[in-house]
Amino acid sequence: MGLKSFVEVSPESHFPLENLPFGVFRPKTAAAAGGSCPPPLAARPGVAIGDLVLDLSAVASAGLFDGPVLKNNHQCFLQPSLNMFVEMGRPAWKEARSTIQKLLSADEPRLRDNASLREKSLIPMGEVQMLLPTIIGDYTDFFCSMHHAKNCGTIFRGPENPISPNWFHLPIAYHGRASSIIVSGTDIIRPRGQGHPSGKSPPYFGPSQKLDFELEMAAIVGPGNELGKPVDVNKAADHIFGLVLLNDWSARDIQAWEYVPLGPFLAKSFGTTISPWIVTLEALEPFACDAPKQEPQPLPYLDENNHRNYDIPLEVWVKPEGHEHPSIITRSNFNHLYWTLTQQLAHHTVNGCNLRAGDLLGTGTISGPDPESYGCLLELTWNAQKPLTINGSDRKFLEDGDEVIITACCKTPTPRTWLLDNRICRIIAPHQATHQARYLAIIY
Amino acid sequence: MGLKSFVEVSPESHFPLENLPFGVFRPKTAAAAGGSCPPPLAARPGVAIGDLVLDLSAVASAGLFDGPVLKNNHQCFLQPSLNMFVEMGRPAWKEARSTIQKLLSADEPRLRDNASLREKSLIPMGEVQMLLPTIIGDYTDFFCSMHHAKNCGTIFRGPENPISPNWFHLPIAYHGRASSIIVSGTDIIRPRGQGHPSGKSPPYFGPSQKLDFELEMAAIVGPGNELGKPVDVNKAADHIFGLVLLNDWSARDIQAWEYVPLGPFLAKSFGTTISPWIVTLEALEPFACDAPKQEPQPLPYLDENNHRNYDIPLEVWVKPEGHEHPSIITRSNFNHLYWTLTQQLAHHTVNGCNLRAGDLLGTGTISGPDPESYGCLLELTWNAQKPLTINGSDRKFLEDGDEVIITACCKTPTPRTWLLDNRICRIIAPHQATHQARYLAIIY
Repeated sequence: MGLKSFVEVSPESHFPLENLPFGVFRPKTAAAAGGSCPPPLAARPGVAIGDLVLDLSAVASAGLFDGPVLKNNHQCFLQPSLNMFVEMGRPAWKEARSTIQKLLSADEPRLRDNASLREKSLIPMGEVQMLLPTIIGDYTDFFCSMHHAKNCGTIFRGPENPISPNWFHLPIAYHGRASSIIVSGTDIIRPRGQGHPSGKSPPYFGPSQKLDFELEMAAIVGPGNELGKPVDVNKAADHIFGLVLLNDWSARDIQAWEYVPLGPFLAKSFGTTISPWIVTLEALEPFACDAPKQEPQPLPYLDENNHRNYDIPLEVWVKPEGHEHPSIITRSNFNHLYWTLTQQLAHHTVNGCNLRAGDLLGTGTISGPDPESYGCLLELTWNAQKPLTINGSDRKFLEDGDEVIITACCKTPTPRTWLLDNRICRIIAPHQATHQARYLAIIY
Repeated sequence: MGLKSFVEVSPESHFPLENLPFGVFRPKTAAAAGGSCPPPLAARPGVAIGDLVLDLSAVASAGLFDGPVLKNNHQCFLQPSLNMFVEMGRPAWKEARSTIQKLLSADEPRLRDNASLREKSLIPMGEVQMLLPTIIGDYTDFFCSMHHAKNCGTIFRGPENPISPNWFHLPIAYHGRASSIIVSGTDIIRPRGQGHPSGKSPPYFGPSQKLDFELEMAAIVGPGNELGKPVDVNKAADHIFGLVLLNDWSARDIQAWEYVPLGPFLAKSFGTTISPWIVTLEALEPFACDAPKQEPQPLPYLDENNHRNYDIPLEVWVKPEGHEHPSIITRSNFNHLYWTLTQQLAHHTVNGCNLRAGDLLGTGTISGPDPESYGCLLELTWNAQKPLTINGSDRKFLEDGDEVIITACCKTPTPRTWLLDNRICRIIAPHQATHQARYLAIIY
């Protein structure tokens, strides 16, 4: 049996008292805000419980964060982003979680029996708009699934040596675009760009014909590090607040033409979607598992005492326009990552690069070993050579009107107790006629 | 003869009344601040004139921005960064420049004859600390000098087809790291990282042995664009506020090992230096010149009506530790860029990627056609095969204690009237013994 809250949490809910993910929301109406402290429609931090959002600004204003760390620092919950809170580090995170878990528990009267505070602080999810949880100064995307690296290398460069020799020595990554990171539910406009020329003709230019998703998760950085001061791999976990799901939308035709020699650029920067709720490492602790054995042994700065992943089943579903139900197209797991989150973070800083609170570190596409567990259409359809069938129609890459849904859901041994869920949904690629027309008008 | 200011501007000064670059500074003492409006030691915008900085917060507080655009918007000068001002666009920039030029001119009494306001608003450069001029949301680095692309390709991949086929069709770029951008004068700590293994041994790990500079300039973005709405190449100039110098410090051994297949990462992200003064495109207008003819003709979205560069002579000097004078090691020019600033910006947004005010777009290393005009040590020493001689000693890459100075200086036809200068200096690579020790302690 799980923990019990006075808030009704159905057995199917992804937000039981064990999860308590953090996000940032805006009440849709002043009535929904219920007279809380920031201006009624302002963005503020919240925690998900069942079908409700707990408004942390209301809890903070009522003086209920009374532990030693947060008692005099509860202004971190009166901000329009979680940056100040995540920067405070693990002592603040642990105290906030235990305070909130206690306040919401069935046998704790302070919130349960205070009708006015309940009214102010517990808002139905349907009455809020979720926003990006942090201000993301920099976004980095890694390339940490061996199966993904091998598949992409085979597709683009052939089956001899598909994985470049550096891959087994360091977690390869590139800098991503921070400005175009958007929260789940925001439409994606199909990008235009240049694709490979055929023969001696000029390159193709127009809407991407190979629009893809990439199944990833991403770490939200907690306290940063000073420029010039690397983070030790064995202390790296203290710099990670939690995880979100990430869809690294990719235009494969643009990517194939532009990426030599400096890596992906416009093939990725038109939009990157993350889920709104950050699931903390603490909530994920029961799902920690051994990470894959590494051969060759990593260099000392990457050789960690505690080489762990998390057992997080991941799924991708696609719902074509006009269809009633989505179809599942892949099942993978976070535990396929060869390089762990902590190795990624230690590597990122080993040259002295400074991370800042709220930064985003994507894992790269998480593919498993089997064709049913590949993390993007490039791999699933082997670059359009083996189309998928979705609800009876062939599918090579994404089509206009598709909705891509990514879920992550850890289950405790007790059946039907789900620990966490994130969802990236309503990705529409590309666009309504009006946008298309406007787009055309600008280009030509 | 140039314009005349009541402020004494020596003929050698790089900051005459024609230049008026914008920056952000902090008075070193309350006395230097002279009772201006923000807290005495707070960051605020300024403009360089001769050996003085004009405090724009003081000018704004005195109500002297009285033109139609800025009269009710002068709070843009009461900010700790230039983001609000650069976001306002060209009408605000033109009005600010003409107001400041008039206020500082010899025959205008409002500032000249107001001793109290002069005291508040004109501060000797020695009494201020220069800061980053904008909050840089994203930093992009292009690869727009054909000579640089050709030299690097020849060094790394051999003389057959040194330039990849995409290069002549699009301005190649990668996302850079925004957090580690620092202002001129900030020390650089030599990065550690992995270098190419030799034979079957594990990769080298330790301080970079091939630390290099890269001579670049960079555009500061003015008004941004909405996600999904590309900027037309013929309107791109309205999105560029001005230029700074940029030193894209590069660790060549780290770069050579890590960059396949996703591009440079830790080889660059340990520090990127920019000059503090943004020289506006308006100040540069007298130096506009034709950009190189492009063959093949660019695709329509890059084919601009006004294909222009600027004639900006660029120099790099190196001063080894303990030497009294720096030695010049290269002379290049901004006009060697094959892809113009406006083509870079239009390409960046063609996929819908959104730029934000204050973003930084680096040009890439600006090399000319001759060996004396190459823009980095990799090219100048042909990857250490042809060492340079600096003040009598051999030099392959940067050594600890080196100071790298980059200057850009346009001259008007009248001798000794310099229009603009930016300087990146006091780059110390890497470090005092204390840092080195601390660094070691963290890694091992």
